[in-house]
Amino acid sequence: MKLNDVSLSAECYKVRLMLSLLGLDYEPAPVDVMAGEHKSEEFLALNPFGQLPVLVDGDATLWGSHAVLVFLALKYSDGNWMPADPIGAGEVMQWLSVAANDMQHSLNEAWLVAAFNIGTDLEGAQARAEAVLDIMEQHLQTRDWLALGQVGRLTVADVACYPYIAVAPDGKIDLTPYTAIQAWMKRVEALPGFVPMLPN
Amino acid sequence: MKLNDVSLSAECYKVRLMLSLLGLDYEPAPVDVMAGEHKSEEFLALNPFGQLPVLVDGDATLWGSHAVLVFLALKYSDGNWMPADPIGAGEVMQWLSVAANDMQHSLNEAWLVAAFNIGTDLEGAQARAEAVLDIMEQHLQTRDWLALGQVGRLTVADVACYPYIAVAPDGKIDLTPYTAIQAWMKRVEALPGFVPMLPN
Repeated sequence: MKLNDVSLSAECYKVRLMLSLLGLDYEPAPVDVMAGEHKSEEFLALNPFGQLPVLVDGDATLWGSHAVLVFLALKYSDGNWMPADPIGAGEVMQWLSVAANDMQHSLNEAWLVAAFNIGTDLEGAQARAEAVLDIMEQHLQTRDWLALGQVGRLTVADVACYPYIAVAPDGKIDLTPYTAIQAWMKRVEALPGFVPMLPN
Repeated sequence: MKLNDVSLSAECYKVRLMLSLLGLDYEPAPVDVMAGEHKSEEFLALNPFGQLPVLVDGDATLWGSHAVLVFLALKYSDGNWMPADPIGAGEVMQWLSVAANDMQHSLNEAWLVAAFNIGTDLEGAQARAEAVLDIMEQHLQTRDWLALGQVGRLTVADVACYPYIAVAPDGKIDLTPYTAIQAWMKRVEALPGFVPMLPN
């Protein structure tokens, strides 16, 4: 199994975290984005959209972090990570959408501006981030994990959202008021196989 | 089953199309977005993000078009619409991401600017739309449907992408050069139960 990725990317980190939580060995294949390697003919043959991450597992080539998370969960776990029942799958999909839309265009954008000077609208991104964090904080006040019923159960939804929350401080977003989110982060970080975005 | 939606919305149309293709009866509950009804306390109790669509089916409340599509596919079909195998599910998730990210921020934005004066960057949106359409055209030149193997099989991926392609002309995007996409649109439109975004 080979993972085409880049180290400083919430999208790619989601997949590295999932692989590690599942205890799977893989060959890292770093892509030199600064040199435009993700737009090379060779890379576009893997993913025509020229985006990372891309996982190659035998005959299967999967691109897009959520596609890879769902693929890994269904192939290498007992179904706990990606439920098959309509309501459970629907709940997980809701939080995958929150990650892909609401969190990417707020927490991730704030991080890119503050840490890498990519983009300009830090205040707008921070304001959108606060709106998402407020909803997530209230949601997590009564449950341990994002999806699945009244108490929640660990799923790919938590893996998809964690990286955006983890980069919040580097986007100059203060997580101190969000005690339920902080408790959830500690639960994620205590999981066997947890790895941070960058090696310590 | 009750669908909170708004008629002129690609997100909401996805769900109406899915419900109709599955032959399901439902109670339409139009939400007056212009009057801010989607930010009312009553609506935020259904979806704290204040976004449409929201489906209420018995005890289940699902928000987010893709969450609703997956919920409906798993609950009311024989599994054809949302495959359970790792590669199949991964492929469907890829195209759901293309719909949520690449198509929404190109085709949908062009439509909003050109038809409703929402946003300003029509040329940027059109350029991004062409990039997506080029990839989709090449993908569909050798297959009938977006996901599942060499020939493809009809899934929720097609239902999630169709609405954005259907509004392209109203976003002043010419689909004439995209013959494989047009052939795919005709296949979708020929499905039993197909409905357009607005009644004819």
